[in-house]
Amino acid sequence: MDLLVVGSGLIGTSIGLALRGQLDVALHDPSAASLEVALGRGAGRRWDGQEAFAHCLVAAPPSAVAGVLASLPTGGTFSHVASVQRAVQASLEEAGVDVTTVCGSHPMAGKEQSGPAAATAELFVGRPWVLCPSASTSAAALEAVRAVAVACGAEPLVMTAEEHDAAVALVSHLPQVAASAVAAVLGGTGGSLDLAGPGLQDTTRIAGSNPALWVEVLRQNAAAVAPLVRELSAELAGAADALDRGDLDAVEQLLRRGNDGRGRVPRKRGEHDRDFVPVSVSVPDEPGQLAGVLVSAAQAGINVEDVRVEHLPGRPTGVIELLVHLDAQAEARRALAAAGWEVVRA
Amino acid sequence: MDLLVVGSGLIGTSIGLALRGQLDVALHDPSAASLEVALGRGAGRRWDGQEAFAHCLVAAPPSAVAGVLASLPTGGTFSHVASVQRAVQASLEEAGVDVTTVCGSHPMAGKEQSGPAAATAELFVGRPWVLCPSASTSAAALEAVRAVAVACGAEPLVMTAEEHDAAVALVSHLPQVAASAVAAVLGGTGGSLDLAGPGLQDTTRIAGSNPALWVEVLRQNAAAVAPLVRELSAELAGAADALDRGDLDAVEQLLRRGNDGRGRVPRKRGEHDRDFVPVSVSVPDEPGQLAGVLVSAAQAGINVEDVRVEHLPGRPTGVIELLVHLDAQAEARRALAAAGWEVVRA
Repeated sequence: MDLLVVGSGLIGTSIGLALRGQLDVALHDPSAASLEVALGRGAGRRWDGQEAFAHCLVAAPPSAVAGVLASLPTGGTFSHVASVQRAVQASLEEAGVDVTTVCGSHPMAGKEQSGPAAATAELFVGRPWVLCPSASTSAAALEAVRAVAVACGAEPLVMTAEEHDAAVALVSHLPQVAASAVAAVLGGTGGSLDLAGPGLQDTTRIAGSNPALWVEVLRQNAAAVAPLVRELSAELAGAADALDRGDLDAVEQLLRRGNDGRGRVPRKRGEHDRDFVPVSVSVPDEPGQLAGVLVSAAQAGINVEDVRVEHLPGRPTGVIELLVHLDAQAEARRALAAAGWEVVRA
Repeated sequence: MDLLVVGSGLIGTSIGLALRGQLDVALHDPSAASLEVALGRGAGRRWDGQEAFAHCLVAAPPSAVAGVLASLPTGGTFSHVASVQRAVQASLEEAGVDVTTVCGSHPMAGKEQSGPAAATAELFVGRPWVLCPSASTSAAALEAVRAVAVACGAEPLVMTAEEHDAAVALVSHLPQVAASAVAAVLGGTGGSLDLAGPGLQDTTRIAGSNPALWVEVLRQNAAAVAPLVRELSAELAGAADALDRGDLDAVEQLLRRGNDGRGRVPRKRGEHDRDFVPVSVSVPDEPGQLAGVLVSAAQAGINVEDVRVEHLPGRPTGVIELLVHLDAQAEARRALAAAGWEVVRA
């Protein structure tokens, strides 16, 4: 299969890089500067504006997909990688595109940076890549974008556009709006944040995301996101009222429902947070300590799921927290202590 | 100075462990089981119930502080470590305690686990320890708790009780309620969370906290927390309305204010997120890789501020993201590539 990728941003360029050596990929972008960066990184060859392809993938913002797609040579199949699906399906119908030739899709991968310079061949490896055929989509169009997803190392997953939009509203768009709103309240008070700890760091991390990109996503999925944001607002209004009238039972119920919801957030596919436990080691806060602890863990055959580093500002010590599987906790503690590390008693 | 610590939970036992070899510390707890664990860990000697001390520190839940304090031998000075201050000050006055002898304080340290078994001598090292003298507190009481904080390795910081309660409402209590509410909405929909990524993980992490402990904190600081939760609710209601009526400018403004607020969240004292940049390495997802990457960084003299591990479910590769200072980014990329690691192009 030969492939035209239109759009050399983070996603389009990463697709080109991932397919290098597998498929004949041509690239195009209305921004010559962006295209040059992508071509320079080896993400594909330049499109002459005429050549037709077996499959064309449009990696453009959701609102631009229909216009771009309608302008391409017909004859092959088409896909896009928009982060919202219903609005794009509707726009294709309005634009008079032959929708039997088109399959929407959405690779669940991204990063805080954007543009071709941030692209990587590994961006999609092991990630879900949602395929959203409409009722009209041909099998050929579906199979073409499935082949692209598989060739990029992703795991294809078929959903309707409605299912997709509801799922991303819940796991991605709602948390984004929530984190932004928490950070906006923090910023707006003018109060001191000097006492902030890791909890605040985590809760507001994605509030650093690009507003211009996010507002387009939220515009296109407003119908799915608005009810969730309103429900969150109502939960919080209920909590504020309960605090005001001293009904702490209601507050405790909210915290308990939060525990339950948190328990449902997947960590790896099929595994949940509660399967992993911390093992903490106290170390001097200097280069090489983190490596040393992990070398000891590796030598003992302990698989470290995740690492958290707690710096102690202005002090010569830090705490390294290794997240290990519950079954490996005792062995990890034993092995690290045996290797001479100061394991913090759990 | 000799010291009586009443309360052998996480904080009281950690204080005893931190002061070992520095001060003569006696311990007491109404729970014999908890006390035995703390004594067994060497956090202090057993109190006979009669002996008087130069200073008594009450490490009990906020609602219990006044009752405990009123029952102790007088003659010395007193402190507590309650996570809220105004309510405890008021309860001391109501209990008829001689408030000139008492200085409230709050070590800004904790962990998701509780109890004496989770205690560590390093819990307070480099952390702010807020001292909240009232208008009546004697200099002797203030200096006694300051000496305890310094001996534990913490950094004392004097604030009024009102300032303290407002600050923790903002940086700790508001994010807790927000994370719990987001997780409660997630859990309540019954929708699939299979498409969840790291953003959702971070935003909801503290929703896993202990409801029974948190509800006491929120009860005692309800007056400071409720207005912030209400403000957050109003921000979100505004966002939902804006999404419904298609006013995406208002949504973008919220996202931009979120960027500003996030930029004010401190990372280390005096340093902010924006000073740190990621360097990513693609590795086989097996024990020892993380250690190998960090050994290479250490050998090159690169100080790794933080580490994030991205597993790629069902695939034999993962991505390790090292957070390094902006000034060290180029050197880190060069050194890791020179050591043979597959550095992901930024």
